[in-house]
Amino acid sequence: MSNILPTRPRSFAAKRNFAIIASQYNPKYVQGLVDHTCKELYAMIPNAGIALYQVPGAFEIPILLQEVARRGSLDAIIALGVIIEGETAHARHIAATVTDAIMRISLESRIPVIHEVLSVRNEEQAEKRCLGEEINRGTEAARAAVQVANVLADFKEKNAA
Amino acid sequence: MSNILPTRPRSFAAKRNFAIIASQYNPKYVQGLVDHTCKELYAMIPNAGIALYQVPGAFEIPILLQEVARRGSLDAIIALGVIIEGETAHARHIAATVTDAIMRISLESRIPVIHEVLSVRNEEQAEKRCLGEEINRGTEAARAAVQVANVLADFKEKNAA
Amino acid sequence: MSNILPTRPRSFAAKRNFAIIASQYNPKYVQGLVDHTCKELYAMIPNAGIALYQVPGAFEIPILLQEVARRGSLDAIIALGVIIEGETAHARHIAATVTDAIMRISLESRIPVIHEVLSVRNEEQAEKRCLGEEINRGTEAARAAVQVANVLADFKEKNAA
Amino acid sequence: MSNILPTRPRSFAAKRNFAIIASQYNPKYVQGLVDHTCKELYAMIPNAGIALYQVPGAFEIPILLQEVARRGSLDAIIALGVIIEGETAHARHIAATVTDAIMRISLESRIPVIHEVLSVRNEEQAEKRCLGEEINRGTEAARAAVQVANVLADFKEKNAA
Amino acid sequence: MSNILPTRPRSFAAKRNFAIIASQYNPKYVQGLVDHTCKELYAMIPNAGIALYQVPGAFEIPILLQEVARRGSLDAIIALGVIIEGETAHARHIAATVTDAIMRISLESRIPVIHEVLSVRNEEQAEKRCLGEEINRGTEAARAAVQVANVLADFKEKNAA
Repeated sequence: MSNILPTRPRSFAAKRNFAIIASQYNPKYVQGLVDHTCKELYAMIPNAGIALYQVPGAFEIPILLQEVARRGSLDAIIALGVIIEGETAHARHIAATVTDAIMRISLESRIPVIHEVLSVRNEEQAEKRCLGEEINRGTEAARAAVQVANVLADFKEKNAA
Repeated sequence: MSNILPTRPRSFAAKRNFAIIASQYNPKYVQGLVDHTCKELYAMIPNAGIALYQVPGAFEIPILLQEVARRGSLDAIIALGVIIEGETAHARHIAATVTDAIMRISLESRIPVIHEVLSVRNEEQAEKRCLGEEINRGTEAARAAVQVANVLADFKEKNAA
Repeated sequence: MSNILPTRPRSFAAKRNFAIIASQYNPKYVQGLVDHTCKELYAMIPNAGIALYQVPGAFEIPILLQEVARRGSLDAIIALGVIIEGETAHARHIAATVTDAIMRISLESRIPVIHEVLSVRNEEQAEKRCLGEEINRGTEAARAAVQVANVLADFKEKNAA
Repeated sequence: MSNILPTRPRSFAAKRNFAIIASQYNPKYVQGLVDHTCKELYAMIPNAGIALYQVPGAFEIPILLQEVARRGSLDAIIALGVIIEGETAHARHIAATVTDAIMRISLESRIPVIHEVLSVRNEEQAEKRCLGEEINRGTEAARAAVQVANVLADFKEKNAA
Repeated sequence: MSNILPTRPRSFAAKRNFAIIASQYNPKYVQGLVDHTCKELYAMIPNAGIALYQVPGAFEIPILLQEVARRGSLDAIIALGVIIEGETAHARHIAATVTDAIMRISLESRIPVIHEVLSVRNEEQAEKRCLGEEINRGTEAARAAVQVANVLADFKEKNAA
């Protein structure tokens, strides 16, 4: 029976190019995500290429993501943002649509996109996930980006010939 | 580590052309959004071009948005409306579908669309967001439109050659 | 600052052609919507062309709507129906999908479609919206259809040359 | 004013070909739907052609539905299934996606698809809708299929020349 | 009246090729799903071909699924994962979008995809569905994959000439 727990060991980390698209709304928390993402990317791949793009709010992430994805030479893109779902349903509709748009752009461009545009209920939840060290979603995003880039590269390599 | 807080300073504001598509349902609140949007756009870009289009309700915003977006020479489009989610689920289904349609039109036309078709629960919430000065969604829409237009213009400029 | 309240006055009402697609489920209420829609359309545009199509339930509205929209010579289409969201989630899933399908057909055909396939919780809510005079959704549908047809016609006229 | 209540009388029932796609999960209830659907179809159109296809669960309905719809010579397709929305959200996500996929396949193939993949909360609700005689969804599905097939055939006939 | 209960008996099990795409988040539970799926597949089809692919989280399943599906020579693909819907709405938005993306990839590639990316509320629910023997979703996934592969193969065989 196959074991899914360990990721395949790689003898050396391949050079990888990433882009981060971050929204500026709730900047304190998004900055936490960006910092943790970059720190972990450089820890895993010291010579990683990282391009950072900023958009006003979460709803504007996909329009830039689409342009960035169409440039084509990226191994993975990371979308970072914080939506605090408040008293109205507006934020919830935005979060659902942005999640869907990120997925569609990823599939159309065939580039993996890590989705850490977080929907949270309050500042306390945002702080825990963006500024904390225990379950930091930026750190997770970086790890997911590297892993999925490796998996896709392996797959394409084996199925190229 | 990159800092996402400050937007890149621009030595002078570029001339920008915007369109606003506003629904007429709940007119008092939508008028507040339109007024604040225009005021802020002119404050940021005194020679901004602003075209205003009106449709009956939020569900009719996308059909006109699609026509306006296809004209092509706009830097950003702003969709403004107020959906008061009442006793039935009808408004919620409309809000979800309109959010999705606005996103798809933005991605197909490659023009950023700011989505401030607000879903609120009651008139009090609408008043605070549309007529107030503290968290006015029209003012926010204008700022987001200018910022994302700048970001996209920069991106296209750098990646054109 | 532009004022969104008054619709642009037109010196005379243009001849317009409409189609109504109505579901037959909950017929008493849908009949109310159809009656009020037709009455208001004829009041606004005495020589309006109105074609009425009937389908069994709300889920069957889009399949006929698509055929009708593809004929092409209509100024607006009005979808009328009543979904009473009962004890199960079945009706809610249908309402969400039908709302989405109506929007997509409208955008693909570039014909405005007024969406008054109402989701209500009980017969009392249906009665108020379909048979009453105060907030009759059929009357609203007719007004929205005429207004959006005018707006689109104006837009196409100005952007044709 | 047009009256939507009576369906147009037809002097004789046209020969019609139907396909039923039924999921096998919760088989007792789905069998009830299948039986009532077939019984009503034959009652309305004695020489009806009915092809029955079975898939494991509701999520597998669309993949076969798409193949069946592409064969093209059907007047309507009926999707039957029972999703008991239990303690987790898994079933709800499936029900929403299946509803959407059925609609999209119907619109792409231009064949009406009757959607009676029921979402219910418990076995009692399933029993009432699938095995009962009062509001049997299979009987309803058959009637809807015949009616919408007639409506579409009429529409295409009138708009063919 | 047709009986949907028994699946058509096949005189011998055809050789079938499957792919499993599993997310690594909540690894204990996903491992349970993978183990039960493989065990049941080999029990039903001793000479089955099974390829296992791993991605970091549920949101990354579709990007690899799309690549795997495009290779084309598979009878069915099984998506396995566990999303514990926690305190925020983030996981729920992801689950809805992943369900939708899996369906769309299945329909585009015309390969059946079994969707057992489970949305659960807590570890207890995950344990019951992934590690238990009574309602193990991995075992169910394997059976559904074999059945739907047979149904589709039969359909294509009969409709090929």
